[in-house]
Amino acid sequence: MDRCVIFCAGEFDAPARPLEAGDYVIAADGGLRHTQALGIVPREILGDFDSLGYTPDSALVYPVEKDDTDALLAVRRGLALGYREFLLYGSLDGPRLDHTVANFQTLAFLCARGAWGYLVGRDTLVTVVRDGAITFPSGCRGGISLFCIGPDARGVHIRGLGYSLEDGVLTSDFPLGVSNHFTGQEAVIRVARGSLLVIWDRQAGFPRREETPC
Amino acid sequence: MDRCVIFCAGEFDAPARPLEAGDYVIAADGGLRHTQALGIVPREILGDFDSLGYTPDSALVYPVEKDDTDALLAVRRGLALGYREFLLYGSLDGPRLDHTVANFQTLAFLCARGAWGYLVGRDTLVTVVRDGAITFPSGCRGGISLFCIGPDARGVHIRGLGYSLEDGVLTSDFPLGVSNHFTGQEAVIRVARGSLLVIWDRQAGFPRREETPC
Repeated sequence: MDRCVIFCAGEFDAPARPLEAGDYVIAADGGLRHTQALGIVPREILGDFDSLGYTPDSALVYPVEKDDTDALLAVRRGLALGYREFLLYGSLDGPRLDHTVANFQTLAFLCARGAWGYLVGRDTLVTVVRDGAITFPSGCRGGISLFCIGPDARGVHIRGLGYSLEDGVLTSDFPLGVSNHFTGQEAVIRVARGSLLVIWDRQAGFPRREETPC
Repeated sequence: MDRCVIFCAGEFDAPARPLEAGDYVIAADGGLRHTQALGIVPREILGDFDSLGYTPDSALVYPVEKDDTDALLAVRRGLALGYREFLLYGSLDGPRLDHTVANFQTLAFLCARGAWGYLVGRDTLVTVVRDGAITFPSGCRGGISLFCIGPDARGVHIRGLGYSLEDGVLTSDFPLGVSNHFTGQEAVIRVARGSLLVIWDRQAGFPRREETPC
């Protein structure tokens, strides 16, 4: 399935996965610097351009005073075009911790619309799983942490990681799922009702997904 | 009121507020390095000491395999001693994004127990407000962002910031409150039901709090 690949204004190095033929690339504001550095011509350029400092030709320009972040504008555009999988580069590692949290919530926004996304950082990948499961193949190494995002996450099953959980509940006021780790076995993380924010070492790569359709 | 000041293992520079006479200082694992650098003798040293790499004399030692982070162990200890206000140094800015999120949830843990805390970063302060309000005095400058943490935050009022809100709802799947800013006026952030994660520029200092007792 084709993906929507969004370049945001945060720090960035080489992509975790090279772009694929069908990828629909959107540069969000200062993310244009990253596509330019990579020699990629984005299909769309959008944002309020307060980060970039100038307004490129052919850009979709939004006012600075708006409810959406530039990343969320790009996500809305991708959803409208029918994309269901999103990669957001330059969405972590920046100096703005609040933008990182906004990007976590942008992942939850996608999940609430039957789609999903990944924040791709220098050393870290982040996703949100809602009413569904992700499976990492055997052979993964490194750390992984799970957190409730939103109302309590119920029916949480963790299998194949260092710490397992059977029909557990995660809440936003107790970080029970922090500092887990891959064991080399296939690892399954499932939540029956609610959403999990999952943060793991980028070296482990991307999981297989199984989400209940909205 | 006396405070519990916890030094965690994350990156750290000089305190935002100098220690005060009644402060109860706890070094959590690698946070001992920070108290040593400051010439502070902590009242307690605790943790699993996987960060510090050795076990200091007189430390309360916990197993590595436990449900609590070292920061949360220290918070539990401070609560047991009757402290209600907590400052956590070395709780942001580290390489572990998952620890930062765990510390957000540790702030929510405090609020669920009638207490409150601040994560103190190099340039950033973070708190959680639950069923209550915080007020910044006039003269504050810089950015501030508000996010729902946990179930939907209802009856949200924002006054005196660049963007106001009247009886609004914030959810964890839409970052409506990101990228607000101080205007120099007194600023009040109030939530009738639920919790807000608030992230702002450290230069603005600490707010006055008004929380509904649990």
